[in-house]
Amino acid sequence: MNIRFYNARILTMQDDKITEGELWVQNERIRYVGDGKDTDGVYEKLSLGSIVWDREIDCRGNLLMPGFKDAHTHSGMTFLRSYADDLPLQDWLNNQVFPMEAKLDGEMIYHLTKLAILEYLTSGITAIFDMYLTPETIAQACVEMGMRCVQVSGENNFGPATAVTEERFLKLNKMDPLLSFFIGFHAEYTCSKELLEEIAALSHKYKAPVYAHISETKTEVEECKERYGMSPVKLLDSLGMFEYGGGGYHCVYLDEEDMEIFKKHDLSVVTNPGSNTKLASGIAPISDYLRKGINVAIGTDGPASNNCLDMFREMFLVTGLAKLREQDASAVDAWEVLKMATVNGSKAMNLPDTDVLAAGKLADIIMIDLQQPNMQPLNHIARNLVYSGSKQNVKMTMIQGRILYEDGRFAKEYDTEGIYRKANEIINGLR
Amino acid sequence: MNIRFYNARILTMQDDKITEGELWVQNERIRYVGDGKDTDGVYEKLSLGSIVWDREIDCRGNLLMPGFKDAHTHSGMTFLRSYADDLPLQDWLNNQVFPMEAKLDGEMIYHLTKLAILEYLTSGITAIFDMYLTPETIAQACVEMGMRCVQVSGENNFGPATAVTEERFLKLNKMDPLLSFFIGFHAEYTCSKELLEEIAALSHKYKAPVYAHISETKTEVEECKERYGMSPVKLLDSLGMFEYGGGGYHCVYLDEEDMEIFKKHDLSVVTNPGSNTKLASGIAPISDYLRKGINVAIGTDGPASNNCLDMFREMFLVTGLAKLREQDASAVDAWEVLKMATVNGSKAMNLPDTDVLAAGKLADIIMIDLQQPNMQPLNHIARNLVYSGSKQNVKMTMIQGRILYEDGRFAKEYDTEGIYRKANEIINGLR
Repeated sequence: MNIRFYNARILTMQDDKITEGELWVQNERIRYVGDGKDTDGVYEKLSLGSIVWDREIDCRGNLLMPGFKDAHTHSGMTFLRSYADDLPLQDWLNNQVFPMEAKLDGEMIYHLTKLAILEYLTSGITAIFDMYLTPETIAQACVEMGMRCVQVSGENNFGPATAVTEERFLKLNKMDPLLSFFIGFHAEYTCSKELLEEIAALSHKYKAPVYAHISETKTEVEECKERYGMSPVKLLDSLGMFEYGGGGYHCVYLDEEDMEIFKKHDLSVVTNPGSNTKLASGIAPISDYLRKGINVAIGTDGPASNNCLDMFREMFLVTGLAKLREQDASAVDAWEVLKMATVNGSKAMNLPDTDVLAAGKLADIIMIDLQQPNMQPLNHIARNLVYSGSKQNVKMTMIQGRILYEDGRFAKEYDTEGIYRKANEIINGLR
Repeated sequence: MNIRFYNARILTMQDDKITEGELWVQNERIRYVGDGKDTDGVYEKLSLGSIVWDREIDCRGNLLMPGFKDAHTHSGMTFLRSYADDLPLQDWLNNQVFPMEAKLDGEMIYHLTKLAILEYLTSGITAIFDMYLTPETIAQACVEMGMRCVQVSGENNFGPATAVTEERFLKLNKMDPLLSFFIGFHAEYTCSKELLEEIAALSHKYKAPVYAHISETKTEVEECKERYGMSPVKLLDSLGMFEYGGGGYHCVYLDEEDMEIFKKHDLSVVTNPGSNTKLASGIAPISDYLRKGINVAIGTDGPASNNCLDMFREMFLVTGLAKLREQDASAVDAWEVLKMATVNGSKAMNLPDTDVLAAGKLADIIMIDLQQPNMQPLNHIARNLVYSGSKQNVKMTMIQGRILYEDGRFAKEYDTEGIYRKANEIINGLR
């Protein structure tokens, strides 16, 4: 498909300027972003001489920008949304989540992931960083629906062996342009030291980065210190876990030395403010991370702990909670937050071709409806996005050049009602 | 207009049960809520024998519930949305807000209020508790657009005299069924003691409740203690301000004695978590208020400090911030929050006919789209609303029996584009 967007405002995220002009998509990539003047010359220069537009979309002054990157989630947990709220993290995990998850199979996770994908699209999320139980069926759901998906293994003492992770690493990184796969583990507190050493060795074998839940709660950090005499970050670093980079999800309780380790290995912090709020885990020191120059990306976490997959909620929370934490209303400004939700997410997920809107980049693009009362007046579009934006403003979500959501309607090949029905059948069958 | 809703799920808010059935609206009131069986008999019993439906709406299993009550806002501040973010409250007020507001006139506020009304409707807000500069033109905007509006005077040392408040009190309480008007003042720190005494006297004259911003910041409380040797609540109580009830906006820093005063006079706390977060004011002790049995309602505050008028954001923040504050993921459950956003708001705003869905009540009703991924599966609808709900789920907003927003479109008599254009003209003219 060749699609021409015109009459657009464009926030490329290369800088904070808003360009008025056009954006052209040829198949899966962006071919042109500019003011759209003298386009005959532009056509020639780009060797697009005989291009035929499948669609020409009048943006009517609405905003094109890179899609949001949800840099930490567990998509398949949709079945537990609103199932067991208002419980502390360890209770919730051990007494509600784990027993229910034990009953899941790959087919169920396939359907539950599809439900999550619908929701990502409504929030302008064009790539997800997913850790869940059956990577093969998650991959299948994502490829079928056209979602870009970076997966990461969630190794732990009760799951499949590291050999399985290696197999998936080799297979899922070659399967489809929409997919990639990283080495990872659930968390220090669900892995033996031997298992952690195995994972570090696998990372060394492939010179591959490693990701895990790190220092999500105070208890987690304290118990790790009791076990090993050091924080989770220091323990993992001592095992050589971060020699090839990677990052941590949550990172609510990193101390100065932990941050130095993150900086030294260029690790990403993926912050999950909705989940940390709902589970009362605490507020991550985002201002400190930014001051240290650590790459900070944003994740929704899974729909059982958030409970929604909404980047607008997360963006407001990132800055709002930082302001509360620092008692400083100037903490973490809107532009920093927008970068986290886009460019920094691409960095954390190793998706360099999705970070900004520019010729040659992948066409992972969203259109934001500015003709809505919460986006008016147009005093400052970036601040409007972060401080008053909502899912309701997502007018279009395009991944890899395909429009998957537009004007409140999903791609016509999706069986939306069938997906809802399946999700309800699954949770009702498991109760 | 007589409107019949059928195939509905109905959350009346009288209790937490979901009824499947019908809801009938005759002109401005609800005539029937029930399972819709044997409706011939029901027609007769209700003397609706010859009723002719202007519309019969198939709800397709979607949810009807009472509209949200936004119990504290400054609608006209839409012009400052995203204009001066990332500043501490006192700087923001004194150096940005007050100088810009000084340039506003009633006609501007009329147009700016209209922009806010559009946004309320998109969030299912059917009544607002508005404190702003020109009550007459705010009233005009609300009546023209069909918004229910409780206004309150924002008296302070620089504004019009108490005699003007009295005039407005007498006039605006009689002007239109959609309107009412309360006595109020901006805050202790912007009123002399003499002015506060005048306001208390006016309240006594009409046996009328009084509302104000109270204990929004730590600084405000400390400075009041320096001035008067007591907290704002105790000072106001000592002046007889609360003899006829009323309430406080924000109430982030009430101590035990303050809470006792609130309880004694049956005052309402109107919490504004979005604004308190963005301005780094702090987290209100909502769990304590509930434990004391104080009526807690929710407000968005104005769009310059929030920056949006979205009850879904506020609902998540009320419970989320309480969980963080108490370090307890079970703090303030979803049902409590839903009550705050509906029934408790009606109580705070003295709108008893808008609190629940029942025969005889005013038809201030919203329809929530459950056929959206963030509302699936249907494990628990009340939790879905609070934890994963969004503006995007608001399928219809009805006030006083009139549908003002439906399927993403505003009432056709609204000049939506004209309202946006005006708001931009106003801020551009004032810069």
